[in-house]
Amino acid sequence: MTKKLVFGHANPDTDAIVAAMAYSYLLNQTGQETEAVALGTPNEETQFALRHFDATAPRVITAAKPEVNSVILVDHNEAQQSVSDVAEVEISAIVDHHKFNLTTATPLNIRAEALGATSSILLKMFNENKVEIPANLAGLMLSAIISDTLLLKSPTTTEFDKIAVQTLAEIADVDYETYGLEMLKAGTNLATKSELD
Amino acid sequence: MTKKLVFGHANPDTDAIVAAMAYSYLLNQTGQETEAVALGTPNEETQFALRHFDATAPRVITAAKPEVNSVILVDHNEAQQSVSDVAEVEISAIVDHHKFNLTTATPLNIRAEALGATSSILLKMFNENKVEIPANLAGLMLSAIISDTLLLKSPTTTEFDKIAVQTLAEIADVDYETYGLEMLKAGTNLATKSELD
Ligand SMILES: [Mn+2]
Ligand SMILES: [Mn+2]
Ligand SMILES: [Mn+2]
Ligand SMILES: [Mn+2]
Repeated sequence: MTKKLVFGHANPDTDAIVAAMAYSYLLNQTGQETEAVALGTPNEETQFALRHFDATAPRVITAAKPEVNSVILVDHNEAQQSVSDVAEVEISAIVDHHKFNLTTATPLNIRAEALGATSSILLKMFNENKVEIPANLAGLMLSAIISDTLLLKSPTTTEFDKIAVQTLAEIADVDYETYGLEMLKAGTNLATKSELD
Repeated sequence: MTKKLVFGHANPDTDAIVAAMAYSYLLNQTGQETEAVALGTPNEETQFALRHFDATAPRVITAAKPEVNSVILVDHNEAQQSVSDVAEVEISAIVDHHKFNLTTATPLNIRAEALGATSSILLKMFNENKVEIPANLAGLMLSAIISDTLLLKSPTTTEFDKIAVQTLAEIADVDYETYGLEMLKAGTNLATKSELD
């Protein structure tokens, strides 16, 4: 089996970065060969989460075709949000929680659910595949759900997102409300400014 | 919760008819209110299968909007293969094994896998939801996989389709090779002609 790249959308938010890391980890645990990459550098919120949970940012790519024949999209499905040459490679799988605007050349695996974050869908997939989530990855997935749902306050928040946050906070051993507020603050210009003040 | 219609593509084949019946049954068992319908009358092969397993064909619709606000597509995802007014209703879920050409207005549930038939994906979903498959529905799902994979001979046939056929044949209590050949013959003009001869 040849290596596949897993990545979220351009101008990545925390869910885009983390869902790639989480899905790549899950796929590798179940016998596939994948690498999580990103279509841009992490924003300040994501950098805060990566630092907090001792993780390094995925390598940034600008094209897929020079490296692989097949890619896996997370947290997006539209070509215009994807890697520049997405039309030249096979899309072999997608995990996403957005509306769809997708054309593929071949059949593929898609897991889409109307949940608050791609990372919530991925928690389900870890459970279904009975793969344990390492504590630092759980902390990152928690961060992604907090980011997309604004600490479970956004109208896109579902009952499952609430359960997911509690489950992941337990694995990561953090108080999600305290941590979540700090993380969201790290992502605002306000926070940057007050740090400078 | 309001009723949703579940249907396969226009000019329905056996998988399009049966996958609608199977997914509707599964959804209703898990607390949703759905009705399996069809975008055309069953072909001769499908009629053979319905007769053999004592089932009646789903009612045919020509439009969705007069009846429901929300629909569920099986065995297709492209608007041009779907109900005439698909653009005027919400697509709330899709189960399919084809390449994609899909635009939606809202997030939705999608389960797509590159298996030989939509009915193979549905067998997985019954198992995941721990819902038992009635013997006659199992016989129909078996018929759909045999139809799409030409008795497990088509290049689209996967290892899981083979397992699915054996599992479903056991539940339906039929010899799938003998039954499958009869069913495929019922769908050919040759068979129609020799019956007339
Ligand atoms: Mn995102
Ligand atoms: Mn997201
Ligand atoms: Mn079909
Ligand atoms: Mn089919």
